[in-house]
Amino acid sequence: MPSAPERAFASDNAAGAHPAVIEAVLEANAGHALAYGADDQTAECEDRFCDLFGAPVVSRVCFNGTGANVAALATAMGSLRGPHHAIVCTNWSHIAADETGAPERVLGTKLIELPAPDAKITPTMLESVGHLHGVQHHVQPGIVSITQPTELGTLYSPAEIAALCTTAHRMGMIVHLDGARIANATAALGGSVDTLRSFTIDAGVDVVSFGGTKNGALGAEAIVFVDPELAVGSEYVRKQVTQLPSKMRYLSAQLNALLRDDLWIELGGHSNAMATHLDELVRDIDGVELAERPQVNSLFPRLPAPVIAPLRDWCFFWDWDVSEQQVRWMTAWDTTTRDVERFAAGVRAILA
Amino acid sequence: MPSAPERAFASDNAAGAHPAVIEAVLEANAGHALAYGADDQTAECEDRFCDLFGAPVVSRVCFNGTGANVAALATAMGSLRGPHHAIVCTNWSHIAADETGAPERVLGTKLIELPAPDAKITPTMLESVGHLHGVQHHVQPGIVSITQPTELGTLYSPAEIAALCTTAHRMGMIVHLDGARIANATAALGGSVDTLRSFTIDAGVDVVSFGGTKNGALGAEAIVFVDPELAVGSEYVRKQVTQLPSKMRYLSAQLNALLRDDLWIELGGHSNAMATHLDELVRDIDGVELAERPQVNSLFPRLPAPVIAPLRDWCFFWDWDVSEQQVRWMTAWDTTTRDVERFAAGVRAILA
Amino acid sequence: MPSAPERAFASDNAAGAHPAVIEAVLEANAGHALAYGADDQTAECEDRFCDLFGAPVVSRVCFNGTGANVAALATAMGSLRGPHHAIVCTNWSHIAADETGAPERVLGTKLIELPAPDAKITPTMLESVGHLHGVQHHVQPGIVSITQPTELGTLYSPAEIAALCTTAHRMGMIVHLDGARIANATAALGGSVDTLRSFTIDAGVDVVSFGGTKNGALGAEAIVFVDPELAVGSEYVRKQVTQLPSKMRYLSAQLNALLRDDLWIELGGHSNAMATHLDELVRDIDGVELAERPQVNSLFPRLPAPVIAPLRDWCFFWDWDVSEQQVRWMTAWDTTTRDVERFAAGVRAILA
Amino acid sequence: MPSAPERAFASDNAAGAHPAVIEAVLEANAGHALAYGADDQTAECEDRFCDLFGAPVVSRVCFNGTGANVAALATAMGSLRGPHHAIVCTNWSHIAADETGAPERVLGTKLIELPAPDAKITPTMLESVGHLHGVQHHVQPGIVSITQPTELGTLYSPAEIAALCTTAHRMGMIVHLDGARIANATAALGGSVDTLRSFTIDAGVDVVSFGGTKNGALGAEAIVFVDPELAVGSEYVRKQVTQLPSKMRYLSAQLNALLRDDLWIELGGHSNAMATHLDELVRDIDGVELAERPQVNSLFPRLPAPVIAPLRDWCFFWDWDVSEQQVRWMTAWDTTTRDVERFAAGVRAILA
Repeated sequence: MPSAPERAFASDNAAGAHPAVIEAVLEANAGHALAYGADDQTAECEDRFCDLFGAPVVSRVCFNGTGANVAALATAMGSLRGPHHAIVCTNWSHIAADETGAPERVLGTKLIELPAPDAKITPTMLESVGHLHGVQHHVQPGIVSITQPTELGTLYSPAEIAALCTTAHRMGMIVHLDGARIANATAALGGSVDTLRSFTIDAGVDVVSFGGTKNGALGAEAIVFVDPELAVGSEYVRKQVTQLPSKMRYLSAQLNALLRDDLWIELGGHSNAMATHLDELVRDIDGVELAERPQVNSLFPRLPAPVIAPLRDWCFFWDWDVSEQQVRWMTAWDTTTRDVERFAAGVRAILA
Repeated sequence: MPSAPERAFASDNAAGAHPAVIEAVLEANAGHALAYGADDQTAECEDRFCDLFGAPVVSRVCFNGTGANVAALATAMGSLRGPHHAIVCTNWSHIAADETGAPERVLGTKLIELPAPDAKITPTMLESVGHLHGVQHHVQPGIVSITQPTELGTLYSPAEIAALCTTAHRMGMIVHLDGARIANATAALGGSVDTLRSFTIDAGVDVVSFGGTKNGALGAEAIVFVDPELAVGSEYVRKQVTQLPSKMRYLSAQLNALLRDDLWIELGGHSNAMATHLDELVRDIDGVELAERPQVNSLFPRLPAPVIAPLRDWCFFWDWDVSEQQVRWMTAWDTTTRDVERFAAGVRAILA
Repeated sequence: MPSAPERAFASDNAAGAHPAVIEAVLEANAGHALAYGADDQTAECEDRFCDLFGAPVVSRVCFNGTGANVAALATAMGSLRGPHHAIVCTNWSHIAADETGAPERVLGTKLIELPAPDAKITPTMLESVGHLHGVQHHVQPGIVSITQPTELGTLYSPAEIAALCTTAHRMGMIVHLDGARIANATAALGGSVDTLRSFTIDAGVDVVSFGGTKNGALGAEAIVFVDPELAVGSEYVRKQVTQLPSKMRYLSAQLNALLRDDLWIELGGHSNAMATHLDELVRDIDGVELAERPQVNSLFPRLPAPVIAPLRDWCFFWDWDVSEQQVRWMTAWDTTTRDVERFAAGVRAILA
Repeated sequence: MPSAPERAFASDNAAGAHPAVIEAVLEANAGHALAYGADDQTAECEDRFCDLFGAPVVSRVCFNGTGANVAALATAMGSLRGPHHAIVCTNWSHIAADETGAPERVLGTKLIELPAPDAKITPTMLESVGHLHGVQHHVQPGIVSITQPTELGTLYSPAEIAALCTTAHRMGMIVHLDGARIANATAALGGSVDTLRSFTIDAGVDVVSFGGTKNGALGAEAIVFVDPELAVGSEYVRKQVTQLPSKMRYLSAQLNALLRDDLWIELGGHSNAMATHLDELVRDIDGVELAERPQVNSLFPRLPAPVIAPLRDWCFFWDWDVSEQQVRWMTAWDTTTRDVERFAAGVRAILA
């Protein structure tokens, strides 16, 4: 086998923090600053989100993705008058599959998981829960939560999200967008601030979980209430669900570093490009079975069973579906062309 | 007025991060590391907590104090078979008064708040809830949660905690210690690792919220299950209550920096010493009314009403009890003798 | 000892069902009727509650008192946008002391228990929680729940409730009245439908738990949303908190029987009268220590310790405060003058 | 159209109470009896359940089916240490589809709904959730809840339940059986007490929701903890989830009447026989499309769209699947041969 890549392909969560993020934290570490958001970094961060969305959005800094999702959904559920409303999502949703039941526990609410081969919800799929409406024995459709890009690495077009929002609002529902990897979606769909707006505020999304951790932060996320009316009570809900950072300046500083000069989009774009490059280098290797070209920063190849373990020992990655011999290769903001080429070389070698 | 101190006396939460913490985070930021705790920093952190307590404790890194408390209590409540058990605490408890109802929401459990002028629970006070036992209409006493040092800056002696644990265990209860400022308590009661053990593991405490944030971290806390039997399920509970950090290495690194060479005790001791020094310099000033000498890092003086606002404008601090003209002056790990002396000079000047 | 009374003085919960209630259930048991409220008895019951309150109130039949309270509070909490709001009550409140933490579990909300020697909340007491308002670390005052008559057998005057409602509404709070024994209060304060209105709808109460079980029903309660705006979602909440009766006709029939010709007030009045009669007969007996004359249907005498057990063996009643040698004697709709006289004779005999 | 049947085919919930039940309630209505279960009727009821299951089971009387399910599951969840465990059921389950999210709200737990065309879970289906085990991001399989007969009117054989229990226990899971119509299952599978035991205690089921309401009661259900170890805490949980009846004697009396001389099995058998008779009379009518012969007391025919409304106007029944023109005809303990024959005549007439 050739030398292994310096950075493995396990997850963008395994990547470190970007130098600009580190620098921002160091700068923020000057003297005293009031806790719980009454600091300059947080004020700047709130301004930056308003600028980013081109509207007086309300943003709330949180620790992690699960926390941002739970706090966003709990606040939105409050404006619906409570947990007899359901959250509609796909069976692949992070909130449904990978948060150990956090939404159910903290919100006391039911998740309706729509089966979705590509992890996307269509207006027709959403309409299928309409029959629950008005029947006292059934949870009432309250929130639809979509993930962009999805957990399967697919993307909604801005038009698809707009159509879904129209349907949801007509059904009296609120739209939440889990943007744990929103930078990758933004980069892939156009790469500008306007791109972001096209599939969020312009499309009718009500509340966004805006991810920083998987995109070069040490750990920082934000809820963005595109509809400020929905943000009422959010400061209490954030605290109540354990997501109020005391020394908030350090989290806001990370987000500021990412938002400055659109660094976040640049990093998302780089990560996407590395996945595309990897796809190009391995797609034609015998034994590598790849369905579609990657839309963002992950590949889900099927491999011959015997090579998976030794390949992983050489350079770590996670299984995706063991029964299908399918694995996941994920790039990050710091993945280099050299990492990709070495990895592709290893794949080629092991399958030779 | 003289020049204001460089650092105000608002809170130890307003202080920055210690250089050793920053350095540790920078060192941890090298290459990729698996997320969610499968990293070297976290392994080291777990070892350090075992060494610290001299026992095979189970530790779980969390984001913040409320989160550590909620995850600790939720796990302990699970081992009691559910939320028909109550958490007994004082009316001053952070969990009761300052967490926006997080325990009630996330655990679904009742808090029984015992009135306590000094924020401490005695065995007799605890026994007062014994009559609830066995009656189906009443919540069953399940956990007693104490804070060390308390929210009023008072301290339990190791013997007091041991006596409370004996009573609690005899009543079938679990003992939780909220140690958001455990370093201050440890420094004040002896200043050694043995001191810590004397009022936790040796006294019979079952689970500890071990604070780092208020003692020089950017933001890092840990739950320490002194009784490993109580830790069963804690990894799922932590995730479910939104407290599982993805890039855990950065939090573990902070705790490692604090635990290395007992830096945490040194910082707690310094903070305490600055409060004592401030007390000495202001106690005799006419108009400053101070009840007892500070046991840890806070003073709660009563001041003439007219001076409070101008003094605060000059150097910030928080009100404690407006109706009593009582304020809180709190020192931190980075408070300097010069800060203290300048602040005392300002107090003297404004009251002259 | 003389012959014991036919009916003991344990509780109005120990009394049977009134013949009119039984007859109504038998009548309702004719043929088929749609479940879950789509039946004639329930339609009649809803009309009766509108007539009773003289307004288009929304009523929801429930199984029991805890259930009515929880469903009422959960619905009201929903209209406040969630469990970061607290329920303010007294330390004697049934919801706080005698429901095994049901509100905390089902609502996920904090109860703030105001110490109240007479189990009543004054506007000043309510204002004492005002400082919580607007601080993200604190639960927000959301609902004030009062009990009429109180758990100590005391009564609010209509003016007292009106003043409390004014204060609560000014503070942005909703007022809930736990009327598990509302018939006793209505009878004691005037004995007419107007009396009921004077301390509920006219006073500004928003939602009432209207009790039937302790007043001659087999088991039937209703939530009355005096403010129909607050009832939005209540049909779903009732089901979700397990309080939707399938064969609702049998519960509605019971309430109809009680509401017909003001039977409920008559029964409450009788029960009160029996307590007054008992008070008159025992107040002057040496060894019986009674503070105030009963306002409704319970006495709380202090007795010499040695007589309590034999007296109870002869005719059952419950302890109230063992440490004070205080017991509770409670009358019911079916207590007779002969029961009272026999019981008084027994008390006299045992203390002779 | 011929004369309509006296009793419609809407639901067994629409049927009245059996004369023996009424008589039992009247008998129970004699004098005073202590509340909350300390009465003779409840003691008898507990004995009857021990006799029925031939073991020292712990039974808890509840108001309704949702309440019994929620209290049973909440108690069982407690013995698993909390809501990070999931309840596995089918997409047809009453707890998943028809309880307005009560389990999620009251337990804070996730339901994993396995798609099941016949509403039955097989061991293989259950094993499909095994991959969740031990991964901190996933809820842990905790309880499997099956319904017997199912919501689709199908039946598990005793052997099928035994196999499922073996698998569940091997996976560390608890087995709950929702027996809202357990009488129909018992009658259909053999019609004796031994039949009941064969698919519950002998098969390895841990806890049963035992239904009375749909089988001739006014409203009464019971939880039967076949494994008494699982019942620990159940009295507190029942109260906390609002399911503790105060005048419990009236509910226990109903259950006693049903359990006496196996009346419950007789009523279930009659109801089943009426469905079979109806099936025989309508199966061959042109336009009536019936898949399988009824196993218990419901038929799910497909009908020509234009006849559904007029037929329902003539004699009420509910839609089942509007998109499939499928309706549900359900018999009850009081359905008569004459009702069946009239209804069949009407169906024949409208389709002629």
